[in-house]
Amino acid sequence: MSAAPHPVIGVDWGTSNVRAYLIDGAGTVHDRRAAPKGILAVEAGGFEAVLQELVGDWISSMPATPVILSGMIGSRQGWREAPYVETPAGIAEVGAKLLPLELASGKRAWIVPGLAQRDGGAPDVMRGEETQIFGALAHEARGRYLFCLPGTHSKWVETEDGRIIRFATHMTGEVFGLLTRHSILGRMMEGETADKDRFAAGLDRAADAGGLLHHLFSVRTRRLFDEIPATGARSYLSGILIGHEVSAALGAHKPEGTVALLGEPELAALYATALTRRGIATKTLAETSARGLWRIAGSLPAAGG
Amino acid sequence: MSAAPHPVIGVDWGTSNVRAYLIDGAGTVHDRRAAPKGILAVEAGGFEAVLQELVGDWISSMPATPVILSGMIGSRQGWREAPYVETPAGIAEVGAKLLPLELASGKRAWIVPGLAQRDGGAPDVMRGEETQIFGALAHEARGRYLFCLPGTHSKWVETEDGRIIRFATHMTGEVFGLLTRHSILGRMMEGETADKDRFAAGLDRAADAGGLLHHLFSVRTRRLFDEIPATGARSYLSGILIGHEVSAALGAHKPEGTVALLGEPELAALYATALTRRGIATKTLAETSARGLWRIAGSLPAAGG
Repeated sequence: MSAAPHPVIGVDWGTSNVRAYLIDGAGTVHDRRAAPKGILAVEAGGFEAVLQELVGDWISSMPATPVILSGMIGSRQGWREAPYVETPAGIAEVGAKLLPLELASGKRAWIVPGLAQRDGGAPDVMRGEETQIFGALAHEARGRYLFCLPGTHSKWVETEDGRIIRFATHMTGEVFGLLTRHSILGRMMEGETADKDRFAAGLDRAADAGGLLHHLFSVRTRRLFDEIPATGARSYLSGILIGHEVSAALGAHKPEGTVALLGEPELAALYATALTRRGIATKTLAETSARGLWRIAGSLPAAGG
Repeated sequence: MSAAPHPVIGVDWGTSNVRAYLIDGAGTVHDRRAAPKGILAVEAGGFEAVLQELVGDWISSMPATPVILSGMIGSRQGWREAPYVETPAGIAEVGAKLLPLELASGKRAWIVPGLAQRDGGAPDVMRGEETQIFGALAHEARGRYLFCLPGTHSKWVETEDGRIIRFATHMTGEVFGLLTRHSILGRMMEGETADKDRFAAGLDRAADAGGLLHHLFSVRTRRLFDEIPATGARSYLSGILIGHEVSAALGAHKPEGTVALLGEPELAALYATALTRRGIATKTLAETSARGLWRIAGSLPAAGG
């Protein structure tokens, strides 16, 4: 099994945030730091300064410890573009394609490549979620698993014997944001309080015939006829969208057992509700990026380059 | 058959525009005017001034001619709220519920009520489309017809023997606008030129398994891998959305014959393409609001109140 026999400085660098972990040779996180300096908040050429500011003291005090970065930092809009590795892919395939970066100090850092799936009706891609999945799989690589990583662009990921074999992205979170902020539906909402009953009503609506584009309009009409309160409209819309995502994903991925949810706890709980109502068992996992980074770093020489 | 045996000043007053027609006793339009003064462009209390500015000369020179208004002007955000008539409803039901308005001159005007459908999984509503449908039905009221009125909020409307029996709204146009203007997909598009091949590719994508929220992401991935050009991404997205709407609507409404398209010609042509590829014949109708207003005005006394 891949795993770093040495300490690692792991960095999960996404669109909105950067999170750093100081991990020992046994995979235990000893320190962690975060900043709202995702790649969209950093100008081109500014990434090394952000890294130094966040963990420069770790890097200089442990010169032999490898630095490994995952997420959108390896995209075209990030520090340097790391070409995608095609599915099916496990730790070995991803570890073999780590992209080296020379830091100003002469030290080398490594960017984890994202995954691309090119064998379906249209391509699909991920950057960072592969690392979370490898972290989640650390103790149970054998067999088939289905993961759901809800978010702006939710991912549904099938694994077999420790490798990612198939995945799909759903733009649920982004569409929810657009509709609440910019559409006629947003004007019918008040507050951001979660309303469990209206979320369930949205899940029910999603199970009707008629299609998503039709169901969305029921946010408006149910407000017009006072069937839902303004304070429940946001949760009702959330139920419609998550209900459609979950139905489509279950049709495509057909889980054999429990679906593992990986994400922000409040959002994961909504997906757990949607899945449970469909008769699917779920478990929710804690943050797994650090362990994923540590496992991938096992492909590096002990000196970290 | 309902029809005004007298001239009518008909006004189709929507969200963005107002269109007025001077119609003779035989239903022929003699003059027409329009202004970008939809209800969102007029402050509360300002509707009568807009009406006077647009057709004040018609009103004063033909004092006995009734003025009849359809569309969002009868909504809560319009001039005065005209309660919905419930489906099934034909000219008779709508004509019996015309809402009278006293103008400053002492003359009376009438607002056509919208329709509400309350018997399904969630309510649905229309304002203005019922008038277009009644105009389209003028010469062929017997039998069953399916109409599609594409737009910001597309309507699919089933009629039987001249009455609207069932309808559904799809938020396709609004979602398209949100995604092109505000989402990550919009950043991958250039220009607004129609690209027929990419529109067809979007229709094909919509026919795949996986669901709309997943298919949307393929705009991003196909641009990432240069499978579509930036100038074709807009049409590809349009094909995905219209393809999903048409599939859902055909599932719900099951047309027995030709689908009649009523809308802006360029948009109607896209729906015709989508329907034809599904083996459904279409015909596209010219603007029918004026004839609908004239037919509904047949319920009024000749003196117009």
